[in-house]
Amino acid sequence: MSSTTLPVIIALKQASSIAWVNQAIANTDTLLLDHSHCERKAAGVALNLMFRYPSYTQLVRQLTKIAREELEHFELVNQWLERRDIPLAALSAPPYGAGMKAQIRAKEPDRLLDSLLVSGLIEARSHERLGLLATHLPDPELAQFYGSLMASEARHYGVYWLLADTYFERGVVNQRLEELAVVESQLLEMLHPEPRIHS
Amino acid sequence: MSSTTLPVIIALKQASSIAWVNQAIANTDTLLLDHSHCERKAAGVALNLMFRYPSYTQLVRQLTKIAREELEHFELVNQWLERRDIPLAALSAPPYGAGMKAQIRAKEPDRLLDSLLVSGLIEARSHERLGLLATHLPDPELAQFYGSLMASEARHYGVYWLLADTYFERGVVNQRLEELAVVESQLLEMLHPEPRIHS
Repeated sequence: MSSTTLPVIIALKQASSIAWVNQAIANTDTLLLDHSHCERKAAGVALNLMFRYPSYTQLVRQLTKIAREELEHFELVNQWLERRDIPLAALSAPPYGAGMKAQIRAKEPDRLLDSLLVSGLIEARSHERLGLLATHLPDPELAQFYGSLMASEARHYGVYWLLADTYFERGVVNQRLEELAVVESQLLEMLHPEPRIHS
Repeated sequence: MSSTTLPVIIALKQASSIAWVNQAIANTDTLLLDHSHCERKAAGVALNLMFRYPSYTQLVRQLTKIAREELEHFELVNQWLERRDIPLAALSAPPYGAGMKAQIRAKEPDRLLDSLLVSGLIEARSHERLGLLATHLPDPELAQFYGSLMASEARHYGVYWLLADTYFERGVVNQRLEELAVVESQLLEMLHPEPRIHS
Protein backbone atom coordinates (compact mmCIF):
# COMPACT_ATOMS: atom_id res chain seq x y z
CA MET A 1 0.00 0.00 0.00
CA SER A 2 1.45 3.37 -0.91
CA SER A 3 1.55 5.86 1.94
CA THR A 4 -0.63 8.33 0.03
CA THR A 5 -3.59 5.97 0.13
CA LEU A 6 -3.67 5.96 3.93
CA PRO A 7 -6.29 8.23 5.50
CA VAL A 8 -3.75 9.78 7.88
CA ILE A 9 -2.30 11.88 5.09
CA ILE A 10 -5.57 13.81 4.96
CA ALA A 11 -4.50 15.56 8.17
CA LEU A 12 -1.31 16.94 6.60
CA LYS A 13 -1.57 20.11 4.55
CA GLN A 14 1.58 19.62 2.52
CA ALA A 15 3.64 16.61 1.53
CA SER A 16 7.30 16.57 2.52
CA SER A 17 9.71 18.00 -0.02
CA ILE A 18 12.06 15.98 -2.17
CA ALA A 19 14.80 18.11 -0.57
CA TRP A 20 14.03 16.45 2.77
CA VAL A 21 14.14 12.99 1.19
CA ASN A 22 17.53 13.73 -0.37
CA GLN A 23 18.88 15.13 2.88
CA ALA A 24 17.60 12.09 4.78
CA ILE A 25 18.99 9.39 2.49
CA ALA A 26 22.37 11.14 2.48
CA ASN A 27 22.46 11.01 6.30
CA THR A 28 20.96 7.70 7.35
CA ASP A 29 23.14 7.31 10.46
CA THR A 30 22.10 10.69 11.86
CA LEU A 31 18.50 9.94 10.93
CA LEU A 32 18.61 6.68 12.87
CA LEU A 33 20.01 8.44 15.93
CA ASP A 34 17.39 11.17 15.65
CA HIS A 35 14.69 8.56 15.17
CA SER A 36 15.78 6.94 18.45
CA HIS A 37 15.29 10.29 20.20
CA CYS A 38 11.88 10.69 18.53
CA GLU A 39 10.63 7.37 19.86
CA ARG A 40 11.80 8.16 23.39
CA LYS A 41 10.24 11.64 23.19
CA ALA A 42 6.96 10.19 21.90
CA ALA A 43 6.87 7.81 24.89
CA GLY A 44 7.62 10.76 27.18
CA VAL A 45 4.81 12.86 25.71
CA ALA A 46 2.28 10.04 26.14
CA LEU A 47 3.42 9.44 29.73
CA ASN A 48 3.26 13.16 30.56
CA LEU A 49 -0.35 13.28 29.39
CA MET A 50 -1.11 10.25 31.58
CA PHE A 51 0.38 12.17 34.53
CA ARG A 52 -1.57 15.32 33.74
CA TYR A 53 -4.95 13.59 33.29
CA PRO A 54 -4.79 10.59 35.66
CA SER A 55 -8.57 10.19 35.89
CA TYR A 56 -9.30 10.26 32.12
CA THR A 57 -9.80 6.52 31.70
CA GLN A 58 -9.80 6.32 27.90
CA LEU A 59 -6.80 8.62 27.64
CA VAL A 60 -4.83 6.66 30.23
CA ARG A 61 -5.70 3.33 28.66
CA GLN A 62 -4.88 4.32 25.08
CA LEU A 63 -1.74 6.29 25.90
CA THR A 64 -0.36 3.45 28.02
CA LYS A 65 -0.49 1.30 24.90
CA ILE A 66 1.15 4.02 22.82
CA ALA A 67 3.91 4.62 25.39
CA ARG A 68 4.63 0.90 25.53
CA GLU A 69 4.82 0.69 21.76
CA GLU A 70 7.08 3.76 21.46
CA LEU A 71 9.48 2.21 23.96
CA GLU A 72 9.46 -1.01 21.98
CA HIS A 73 10.32 0.95 18.83
CA PHE A 74 12.97 2.88 20.77
CA GLU A 75 14.60 -0.48 21.57
CA LEU A 76 14.38 -1.60 17.95
CA VAL A 77 15.97 1.61 16.64
CA ASN A 78 18.70 1.32 19.26
CA GLN A 79 19.44 -2.19 18.03
CA TRP A 80 20.00 -0.70 14.57
CA LEU A 81 22.32 1.89 16.07
CA GLU A 82 24.27 -0.84 17.82
CA ARG A 83 24.53 -2.93 14.66
CA ARG A 84 25.94 0.09 12.83
CA ASP A 85 28.30 1.06 15.67
CA ILE A 86 26.56 4.39 16.13
CA PRO A 87 26.93 5.34 19.79
CA LEU A 88 23.94 6.72 21.66
CA ALA A 89 24.39 10.49 21.93
CA ALA A 90 22.47 13.67 22.53
CA LEU A 91 21.40 15.42 19.31
CA SER A 92 20.12 18.97 18.90
CA ALA A 93 16.41 19.07 18.14
CA PRO A 94 15.10 20.78 14.99
CA PRO A 95 12.70 23.73 15.55
CA TYR A 96 9.68 21.59 14.59
CA GLY A 97 8.89 20.08 18.03
CA ALA A 98 9.18 23.37 19.92
CA GLY A 99 7.19 25.10 17.17
CA MET A 100 4.36 22.61 17.52
CA LYS A 101 4.47 22.73 21.31
CA ALA A 102 4.18 26.52 21.19
CA GLN A 103 0.74 26.06 19.60
CA ILE A 104 -0.65 24.37 22.72
CA ARG A 105 -2.87 26.87 24.54
CA ALA A 106 -2.20 27.10 28.29
CA LYS A 107 -5.77 27.05 29.56
CA GLU A 108 -7.89 23.94 29.96
CA PRO A 109 -9.74 22.40 28.23
CA ASP A 110 -7.92 23.92 25.20
CA ARG A 111 -4.65 22.56 26.53
CA LEU A 112 -5.89 18.98 26.38
CA LEU A 113 -7.40 19.39 22.91
CA ASP A 114 -4.25 21.00 21.52
CA SER A 115 -1.95 18.48 23.21
CA LEU A 116 -3.83 15.58 21.63
CA LEU A 117 -3.96 17.16 18.17
CA VAL A 118 -0.33 18.30 18.19
CA SER A 119 0.76 14.77 19.13
CA GLY A 120 -1.53 13.38 16.46
CA LEU A 121 -0.10 15.65 13.76
CA ILE A 122 3.48 14.77 14.71
CA GLU A 123 2.57 11.09 14.44
CA ALA A 124 0.93 11.75 11.05
CA ARG A 125 4.07 13.48 9.80
CA SER A 126 6.27 10.70 11.17
CA HIS A 127 4.09 8.21 9.33
CA GLU A 128 4.51 10.12 6.07
CA ARG A 129 8.28 10.50 6.47
CA LEU A 130 8.98 6.93 7.55
CA GLY A 131 6.94 5.94 4.49
CA LEU A 132 9.18 8.09 2.29
CA LEU A 133 12.26 6.47 3.84
CA ALA A 134 10.74 3.03 3.25
CA THR A 135 10.27 3.92 -0.42
CA HIS A 136 13.50 5.79 -1.16
CA LEU A 137 16.26 4.35 1.02
CA PRO A 138 18.76 2.38 -1.04
CA ASP A 139 19.44 -0.11 1.81
CA PRO A 140 16.56 -2.62 1.45
CA GLU A 141 16.82 -3.89 5.03
CA LEU A 142 16.68 -0.40 6.55
CA ALA A 143 13.90 0.56 4.14
CA GLN A 144 11.93 -2.47 5.29
CA PHE A 145 12.50 -1.52 8.91
CA TYR A 146 11.04 1.96 8.37
CA GLY A 147 8.17 0.38 6.45
CA SER A 148 7.44 -1.85 9.44
CA LEU A 149 7.13 1.15 11.77
CA MET A 150 5.08 3.52 9.63
CA ALA A 151 1.77 1.74 10.19
CA SER A 152 2.06 2.28 13.96
CA GLU A 153 2.56 6.00 13.47
CA ALA A 154 -0.65 6.18 11.42
CA ARG A 155 -2.48 4.19 14.12
CA HIS A 156 -1.15 6.53 16.80
CA TYR A 157 -2.44 9.52 14.83
CA GLY A 158 -5.82 7.78 14.82
CA VAL A 159 -5.72 7.19 18.58
CA TYR A 160 -4.91 10.83 19.31
CA TRP A 161 -7.69 11.98 16.99
CA LEU A 162 -10.19 9.57 18.59
CA LEU A 163 -9.23 10.76 22.06
CA ALA A 164 -9.82 14.36 20.98
CA ASP A 165 -13.16 13.24 19.56
CA THR A 166 -13.96 11.51 22.89
CA TYR A 167 -13.47 14.61 25.02
CA PHE A 168 -14.51 17.38 22.58
CA GLU A 169 -17.18 18.08 19.99
CA ARG A 170 -16.23 16.93 16.55
CA GLY A 171 -16.69 20.34 14.97
CA VAL A 172 -14.32 21.91 17.50
CA VAL A 173 -11.78 19.10 16.99
CA ASN A 174 -11.73 19.35 13.23
CA GLN A 175 -11.55 23.12 13.15
CA ARG A 176 -8.59 23.17 15.53
CA LEU A 177 -6.94 20.28 13.66
CA GLU A 178 -7.23 22.33 10.48
CA GLU A 179 -5.54 25.34 12.12
CA LEU A 180 -2.75 23.25 13.64
CA ALA A 181 -2.16 21.36 10.41
CA VAL A 182 -1.52 24.66 8.60
CA VAL A 183 1.13 25.59 11.16
CA GLU A 184 2.59 22.09 11.03
CA SER A 185 3.22 22.32 7.31
CA GLN A 186 4.55 25.88 7.61
CA LEU A 187 7.11 24.72 10.17
CA LEU A 188 8.52 22.27 7.61
CA GLU A 189 8.42 24.60 4.59
CA MET A 190 12.02 25.67 5.05
CA LEU A 191 14.31 22.61 5.26
CA HIS A 192 16.27 22.68 8.53
CA PRO A 193 19.99 22.37 7.69
CA GLU A 194 20.59 19.51 10.13
CA PRO A 195 19.21 16.17 8.94
CA ARG A 196 16.41 15.04 11.23
CA ILE A 197 13.15 13.07 11.00
CA HIS A 198 11.41 16.45 11.36
CA SER A 199 13.97 18.73 9.64
CA MET B 1 9.89 -18.51 49.15
CA SER B 2 9.38 -16.04 51.97
CA SER B 3 10.28 -12.47 51.16
CA THR B 4 12.85 -12.35 53.95
CA THR B 5 15.04 -14.91 52.20
CA LEU B 6 15.47 -12.72 49.10
CA PRO B 7 18.76 -10.83 48.88
CA VAL B 8 17.03 -7.52 48.14
CA ILE B 9 15.96 -7.19 51.75
CA ILE B 10 19.60 -6.70 52.68
CA ALA B 11 19.32 -3.16 51.32
CA LEU B 12 16.51 -2.22 53.69
CA LYS B 13 17.42 -1.18 57.21
CA GLN B 14 14.06 -1.94 58.80
CA ALA B 15 11.18 -4.22 57.95
CA SER B 16 7.75 -2.66 57.48
CA SER B 17 5.59 -2.50 60.60
CA ILE B 18 2.59 -4.67 61.28
CA ALA B 19 0.69 -1.37 61.57
CA TRP B 20 1.30 -0.79 57.84
CA VAL B 21 0.12 -4.31 57.01
CA ASN B 22 -3.07 -3.79 59.00
CA GLN B 23 -3.71 -0.40 57.41
CA ALA B 24 -3.11 -1.87 53.95
CA ILE B 25 -5.38 -4.90 54.24
CA ALA B 26 -8.16 -2.68 55.63
CA ASN B 27 -7.93 -0.43 52.55
CA THR B 28 -7.28 -2.67 49.56
CA ASP B 29 -9.18 -0.48 47.07
CA THR B 30 -7.14 2.61 47.93
CA LEU B 31 -3.97 0.51 47.88
CA LEU B 32 -4.79 -0.70 44.37
CA LEU B 33 -5.36 2.85 43.16
CA ASP B 34 -2.14 4.01 44.80
CA HIS B 35 -0.30 1.03 43.32
CA SER B 36 -1.48 2.11 39.88
CA HIS B 37 0.06 5.55 40.48
CA CYS B 38 3.28 3.92 41.74
CA GLU B 39 3.71 1.91 38.55
CA ARG B 40 3.15 4.97 36.35
CA LYS B 41 5.55 7.02 38.48
CA ALA B 42 8.18 4.27 38.31
CA ALA B 43 7.92 4.29 34.51
CA GLY B 44 8.21 8.09 34.57
CA VAL B 45 11.34 8.01 36.74
CA ALA B 46 13.03 5.48 34.44
CA LEU B 47 12.12 7.52 31.36
CA ASN B 48 13.34 10.76 32.96
CA LEU B 49 16.72 9.17 33.61
CA MET B 50 16.85 8.03 29.98
CA PHE B 51 16.21 11.66 28.94
CA ARG B 52 18.85 13.01 31.30
CA TYR B 53 21.58 10.54 30.30
CA PRO B 54 20.84 9.79 26.62
CA SER B 55 24.37 8.62 25.84
CA TYR B 56 24.74 6.17 28.77
CA THR B 57 24.17 3.00 26.78
CA GLN B 58 23.78 0.53 29.65
CA LEU B 59 21.49 2.88 31.55
CA VAL B 60 19.32 3.54 28.49
CA ARG B 61 19.13 -0.14 27.63
CA GLN B 62 18.25 -1.35 31.12
CA LEU B 63 15.86 1.46 31.97
CA THR B 64 13.96 1.01 28.70
CA LYS B 65 13.21 -2.53 29.84
CA ILE B 66 12.19 -1.34 33.28
CA ALA B 67 9.94 1.42 31.89
CA ARG B 68 8.26 -1.07 29.57
CA GLU B 69 7.68 -3.47 32.44
CA GLU B 70 6.30 -0.77 34.76
CA LEU B 71 3.82 0.24 32.07
CA GLU B 72 2.79 -3.38 31.66
CA HIS B 73 2.19 -3.60 35.42
CA PHE B 74 0.35 -0.27 35.32
CA GLU B 75 -2.04 -1.84 32.79
CA LEU B 76 -2.46 -4.95 34.95
CA VAL B 77 -3.25 -2.92 38.08
CA ASN B 78 -5.69 -0.79 36.08
CA GLN B 79 -7.47 -3.98 34.98
CA TRP B 80 -7.93 -4.81 38.67
CA LEU B 81 -9.32 -1.33 39.28
CA GLU B 82 -11.76 -1.78 36.42
CA ARG B 83 -12.86 -5.20 37.66
CA ARG B 84 -13.57 -3.68 41.07
CA ASP B 85 -15.32 -0.59 39.65
CA ILE B 86 -12.72 1.71 41.15
CA PRO B 87 -12.47 4.74 38.87
CA LEU B 88 -9.05 6.10 37.97
CA ALA B 89 -8.44 9.20 40.08
CA ALA B 90 -5.68 11.42 41.38
CA LEU B 91 -4.47 10.49 44.87
CA SER B 92 -2.35 12.55 47.25
CA ALA B 93 1.17 11.16 47.56
CA PRO B 94 2.58 10.17 50.96
CA PRO B 95 5.73 12.07 52.07
CA TYR B 96 7.96 9.07 51.25
CA GLY B 97 8.64 9.82 47.56
CA ALA B 98 9.42 13.51 48.09
CA GLY B 99 11.53 12.60 51.12
CA MET B 100 13.61 10.18 49.07
CA LYS B 101 13.90 12.60 46.16
CA ALA B 102 15.18 15.28 48.55
CA GLN B 103 18.21 13.04 49.21
CA ILE B 104 19.39 13.30 45.59
CA ARG B 105 22.35 15.68 45.47
CA ALA B 106 22.13 18.31 42.71
CA LYS B 107 25.67 18.10 41.36
CA GLU B 108 26.88 15.45 38.95
CA PRO B 109 28.08 12.75 39.20
CA ASP B 110 26.46 12.54 42.67
CA ARG B 111 23.09 13.20 41.11
CA LEU B 112 23.29 10.10 38.92
CA LEU B 113 24.52 7.89 41.77
CA ASP B 114 21.81 9.10 44.14
CA SER B 115 19.08 8.86 41.50
CA LEU B 116 19.96 5.22 40.81
CA LEU B 117 20.18 4.27 44.47
CA VAL B 118 17.00 6.09 45.50
CA SER B 119 15.10 4.33 42.71
CA GLY B 120 16.68 1.05 43.76
CA LEU B 121 15.66 1.49 47.38
CA ILE B 122 12.08 2.38 46.44
CA GLU B 123 11.93 -0.78 44.32
CA ALA B 124 13.36 -2.79 47.24
CA ARG B 125 10.70 -1.41 49.58
CA SER B 126 7.97 -2.06 47.01
CA HIS B 127 9.22 -5.62 46.74
CA GLU B 128 9.02 -6.06 50.51
CA ARG B 129 5.56 -4.53 50.78
CA LEU B 130 4.04 -6.37 47.81
CA GLY B 131 5.43 -9.51 49.44
CA LEU B 132 3.65 -8.63 52.67
CA LEU B 133 0.42 -8.07 50.78
CA ALA B 134 0.89 -11.40 49.00
CA THR B 135 1.24 -13.09 52.39
CA HIS B 136 -1.43 -11.29 54.42
CA LEU B 137 -4.28 -10.31 52.08
CA PRO B 138 -7.40 -12.36 52.73
CA ASP B 139 -8.45 -12.28 49.02
CA PRO B 140 -6.40 -15.15 47.52
CA GLU B 141 -6.65 -13.86 43.95
CA LEU B 142 -5.43 -10.37 44.86
CA ALA B 143 -2.73 -11.87 47.09
CA GLN B 144 -1.55 -13.96 44.15
CA PHE B 145 -1.49 -10.89 41.93
CA TYR B 146 0.78 -9.02 44.34
CA GLY B 147 2.92 -12.13 44.62
CA SER B 148 3.31 -12.18 40.85
CA LEU B 149 4.64 -8.61 40.79
CA MET B 150 7.03 -8.69 43.74
CA ALA B 151 9.79 -10.57 41.91
CA SER B 152 10.01 -7.79 39.29
CA GLU B 153 10.48 -5.18 41.98
CA ALA B 154 13.41 -7.15 43.39
CA ARG B 155 14.89 -7.48 39.91
CA HIS B 156 14.49 -3.74 39.34
CA TYR B 157 16.36 -3.07 42.59
CA GLY B 158 19.12 -5.29 41.22
CA VAL B 159 19.22 -3.41 37.91
CA TYR B 160 19.50 -0.02 39.63
CA TRP B 161 22.27 -1.33 41.89
CA LEU B 162 24.14 -2.84 38.93
CA LEU B 163 23.88 0.44 37.00
CA ALA B 164 25.30 2.30 40.01
CA ASP B 165 28.08 -0.30 40.11
CA THR B 166 28.69 0.22 36.36
CA TYR B 167 29.25 3.97 36.63
CA PHE B 168 30.77 4.26 40.13
CA GLU B 169 33.28 2.50 42.35
CA ARG B 170 31.73 -0.20 44.45
CA GLY B 171 32.94 1.27 47.73
CA VAL B 172 31.34 4.60 46.91
CA VAL B 173 28.11 2.88 45.85
CA ASN B 174 27.76 0.81 48.97
CA GLN B 175 28.61 3.62 51.34
CA ARG B 176 26.00 5.87 49.76
CA LEU B 177 23.46 3.04 49.64
CA GLU B 178 23.99 2.57 53.38
CA GLU B 179 23.33 6.27 54.06
CA LEU B 180 20.24 6.38 51.86
CA ALA B 181 18.86 3.16 53.32
CA VAL B 182 18.97 4.69 56.80
CA VAL B 183 16.92 7.66 55.60
CA GLU B 184 14.55 5.37 53.70
CA SER B 185 13.66 3.45 56.86
CA GLN B 186 13.38 6.65 58.90
CA LEU B 187 10.85 8.01 56.40
CA LEU B 188 8.60 5.01 57.07
CA GLU B 189 9.04 4.88 60.85
CA MET B 190 5.91 6.93 61.47
CA LEU B 191 2.93 5.40 59.66
CA HIS B 192 1.36 7.96 57.30
CA PRO B 193 -2.36 8.22 58.13
CA GLU B 194 -3.48 7.73 54.52
CA PRO B 195 -3.17 4.14 53.30
CA ARG B 196 -0.56 3.96 50.54
CA ILE B 197 2.00 1.47 49.23
CA HIS B 198 4.63 3.72 50.83
CA SER B 199 2.63 5.07 53.82
